[in-house]
Amino acid sequence: MKNFVPIVDTLGSYNKSAFKGDLNAGVTVGIMLIPQGMAYAILAGLPPVYGLYASIIPLVIYALFGTSRQLAVGPVAMVSLLVVAGVGEFAEVGSARFIQLAILTALGVGLVQFLMGLFRMGFLVNFLSHPVLSGFTSAAALIIGASQIKNLTGLELTRTKQVQEIVIETFRRFTEIEPITAAIGIGSIAAIILIRKWKRTFPSALVVVVVGTVLTAMFGLNQHGVAIVGEIPKGLPTFSLEFLNLSDARILIPTVLIISLVSYMESIAVAKAIANKHGYKVDANKELIALGAANIGGSFFQAFPTTGGFSRTAVNDQSGANTTIASIISAAIIALTVLFLTPLFYYLPSAVLAAIIMVAVAGLFDISEMKHLWKTDKRDLAMLLATFIATLALGIEEGIAIGVVLSLVLVIYSSTKPHSAELGRLGDSKNYRNINRYTEAEVDDEVLIYRYDSSLYFANVEHFQESLFRIIEQRGEQLELVILDASAIHSVDSTGVHMLSEVIKDLRQRRIAFFIAGAIGPVRDKLKKCGIQEAMGEENFFFDVSGAVAYYKDQPERIKKTFSPCQTNV
Amino acid sequence: MKNFVPIVDTLGSYNKSAFKGDLNAGVTVGIMLIPQGMAYAILAGLPPVYGLYASIIPLVIYALFGTSRQLAVGPVAMVSLLVVAGVGEFAEVGSARFIQLAILTALGVGLVQFLMGLFRMGFLVNFLSHPVLSGFTSAAALIIGASQIKNLTGLELTRTKQVQEIVIETFRRFTEIEPITAAIGIGSIAAIILIRKWKRTFPSALVVVVVGTVLTAMFGLNQHGVAIVGEIPKGLPTFSLEFLNLSDARILIPTVLIISLVSYMESIAVAKAIANKHGYKVDANKELIALGAANIGGSFFQAFPTTGGFSRTAVNDQSGANTTIASIISAAIIALTVLFLTPLFYYLPSAVLAAIIMVAVAGLFDISEMKHLWKTDKRDLAMLLATFIATLALGIEEGIAIGVVLSLVLVIYSSTKPHSAELGRLGDSKNYRNINRYTEAEVDDEVLIYRYDSSLYFANVEHFQESLFRIIEQRGEQLELVILDASAIHSVDSTGVHMLSEVIKDLRQRRIAFFIAGAIGPVRDKLKKCGIQEAMGEENFFFDVSGAVAYYKDQPERIKKTFSPCQTNV
Repeated sequence: MKNFVPIVDTLGSYNKSAFKGDLNAGVTVGIMLIPQGMAYAILAGLPPVYGLYASIIPLVIYALFGTSRQLAVGPVAMVSLLVVAGVGEFAEVGSARFIQLAILTALGVGLVQFLMGLFRMGFLVNFLSHPVLSGFTSAAALIIGASQIKNLTGLELTRTKQVQEIVIETFRRFTEIEPITAAIGIGSIAAIILIRKWKRTFPSALVVVVVGTVLTAMFGLNQHGVAIVGEIPKGLPTFSLEFLNLSDARILIPTVLIISLVSYMESIAVAKAIANKHGYKVDANKELIALGAANIGGSFFQAFPTTGGFSRTAVNDQSGANTTIASIISAAIIALTVLFLTPLFYYLPSAVLAAIIMVAVAGLFDISEMKHLWKTDKRDLAMLLATFIATLALGIEEGIAIGVVLSLVLVIYSSTKPHSAELGRLGDSKNYRNINRYTEAEVDDEVLIYRYDSSLYFANVEHFQESLFRIIEQRGEQLELVILDASAIHSVDSTGVHMLSEVIKDLRQRRIAFFIAGAIGPVRDKLKKCGIQEAMGEENFFFDVSGAVAYYKDQPERIKKTFSPCQTNV
Repeated sequence: MKNFVPIVDTLGSYNKSAFKGDLNAGVTVGIMLIPQGMAYAILAGLPPVYGLYASIIPLVIYALFGTSRQLAVGPVAMVSLLVVAGVGEFAEVGSARFIQLAILTALGVGLVQFLMGLFRMGFLVNFLSHPVLSGFTSAAALIIGASQIKNLTGLELTRTKQVQEIVIETFRRFTEIEPITAAIGIGSIAAIILIRKWKRTFPSALVVVVVGTVLTAMFGLNQHGVAIVGEIPKGLPTFSLEFLNLSDARILIPTVLIISLVSYMESIAVAKAIANKHGYKVDANKELIALGAANIGGSFFQAFPTTGGFSRTAVNDQSGANTTIASIISAAIIALTVLFLTPLFYYLPSAVLAAIIMVAVAGLFDISEMKHLWKTDKRDLAMLLATFIATLALGIEEGIAIGVVLSLVLVIYSSTKPHSAELGRLGDSKNYRNINRYTEAEVDDEVLIYRYDSSLYFANVEHFQESLFRIIEQRGEQLELVILDASAIHSVDSTGVHMLSEVIKDLRQRRIAFFIAGAIGPVRDKLKKCGIQEAMGEENFFFDVSGAVAYYKDQPERIKKTFSPCQTNV
């Protein structure tokens, strides 16, 4: 029981001081969630109240099953963007059909995550490399930001997904900007930034919501061109399976898969960081199950996809959250809000919500990672920029898919031309190192020590042969022995075995002996199984290079005996 | 000049004895080519004379540019099958449109190979692993064999690509088999096999062609249901660019790409094997250029795609070919044939050509490779069988594509969960090996020596962390030092660097020191660049594990000093 529902374990040792922290954190995050939930719902293309619906049931379910004690689940910007990009292809944004598909997406995401957790497939997210995710996130931040210019300024922009078109049009039609709307929007951004600088856990978003709403109501700004949220329905989300439709489910598959991975990735990253800080462990597969259950349960109560978010989790932690009870308290605050407080938001200007979104995503644009990779890893920077550009130019889902495929292709490509080195002895030591790095390393004319820094498999057998024989040709007639330092060869496939036997045959024809040094267990097993060990002779395998050299030095004429004719058939 | 047209070099040292060998080989292969060329043209869905056309110009061009001295270029069974499978989707087999597209395919293949050679992209064929190619070839042999049952037995079978359907239908309609046709066909197979057993270089195919033709003409067997080749146009192939059509070119792209790779693969494999035997080298990229030029030039003279084939190259070599002059002599024989001898083939029974094809492809079904992999590498066997089944069930091009993608996915997958080991000391030696293999290896309670057998990159950083910390937890409180044996880590990407700095931070919090031993140059460079080396301290890098252990043993209290607070920010 404890194993599947961690909260049982939590409650066993729960006490008053833990509750005090949870209460403070739960209330703080709950208050933060009211405007954020509405803002992210608008970003996702849904009426604001759906952001509140998504902040009740999923939080409670995660609180029961989650292994992170501080993770704050709910609507997040990135997932909202993926919802509007994916679902927007099949239904008009904001329509009843759109809402139905968004909720169906939540069910799909929940099922995929739940099953991935059950079958322990959390490792799949490893294929989203850090540069790819960073490039994608930065591009998404720009796209989200650009999508909010409309609400922030009151400009009636042409509908487009192209960030540069939005920016150009904004500048071209600068004079058409609604002055009051823009003042509220930009003023809200400034206020949030200033309040955050002063105290990070203070509900800055709520402040601008209250001020903005009061000002609008007092001066009737909605009569002067300021767009307001308008009527928000009262009451808790109701249980409904109306959204369920198998033929719709099929068209949503790509969107569902991408949201499942991206949202899990965001959540597990922040959960692990917080867990490390507190010295406990989160279980990746249990997290998948908990997030999946939260999305499944949420979809039955009109929630769109949710996950654990960066900023609210940080606030939750800083406000003293000790257990997932804090999330239940946050959910209760939202539940009270939808029950009693929605009329208060009638005069809330849309520009305030746009300001909240813009501040939230500004932090996602990761220029420091780009600078860092420029200094340390140009190849990973190229990957980041490729994903960034593909996401901006081709679309959200296409961008991340291209990034993943590109990074896998590069892994394969670089393994076809791995590093290799000729080794020499350092002084009188037993250390043999790359002669191109250690110019003082000494080389015997009769012995070539060759290290190959990759597993041997079908895509690099050619490269192995070519680079080995290039050095052998350079060495010329004096060469008597080739020692392969196999310590970096961690596997050999059947094509590799075939190539090795060709190499041994070829070397025998040239009357050059062949030793293998430092091969790890699995490689020795494979060579034994395929008869290479027998063909070479057990005695020609060594623990390390120095052992192989010593064996040769001890009695160099011994190796000539090994060229008996019966052995030339490997 | 010599560098681009190797034949110039050849002629420089050409003499009478070399010519004697070339003459014998050229005539032998030329005579062999007459029936084989016609047979493979029929297999490719073309009138027989196109097989002769494809045996003139391509041979001469390869003779000028090729770096293999014995390779026999011309129509081969596998490429013919790919032509009929690919082109057959867009035109009715044997129609004028089909012929046009087949010749256009040759031009496309030539261009792709030529450009691949020019841009030194020969390494691309490395992605066709040995098991994938073997599974594909075996399936292709079955498909080719089944496609010839019709011609061999005179049965009018329903058109289908499914081997099992052809076999079932053959058995069901066993009584409808043309007795004389079947007798000629099966008799020819038996005769070829017997003659080959007696003397491999004897033109067995020509013998059955002559005997079959004479018998048919003498007894007028074509009046008794035996299908004959009929009239073959006289005269050399003419220069023509009528086939050229850009919109057709687009639809042929997948077929062209697959034929380019598969035909090059077959050719380079046999060229390398023969070159090894004679002690010279073939240049992979020049071979691509030569084969490309042969196909481009051939297409201008009505040739369909050609390449270097296994069996004729072996015969060429065994008959004494010394230089590519032999190929020019073969081409001359074929030219004389189309000029003067085509009327002689009027009564040639189709069943004889079917017999020639069947014997040729029987050798391609590679059961011994399957047996070998069953013993040595079950994973590669699974790959072979997957490609085999996909080719039979889904089609020629789909089969090979699935094989390639599957083998790449498996490479990636296995690198996400690489081998790793905890090491212990063997006796008093400096050798540290896997404690699960060497039960006598000794382990210190205070020191964990951990070896990770893969490069560190985004897809396995999770696995590294998890497997390392699993052992650390098992070790408990006594642990003071972790030594990472990095000798098998041949690269680290930015995600790997990030993870390593997390690991170091985490270990510092647990007051465990961290040494890296045996890291190769490129890895040390990377760690230096990213600041890991500085954060860890230069003195904590060692040539090998025994050096690291000695440093610790020498003064174990020294490592405790390294936990100064300023160092906890990696």
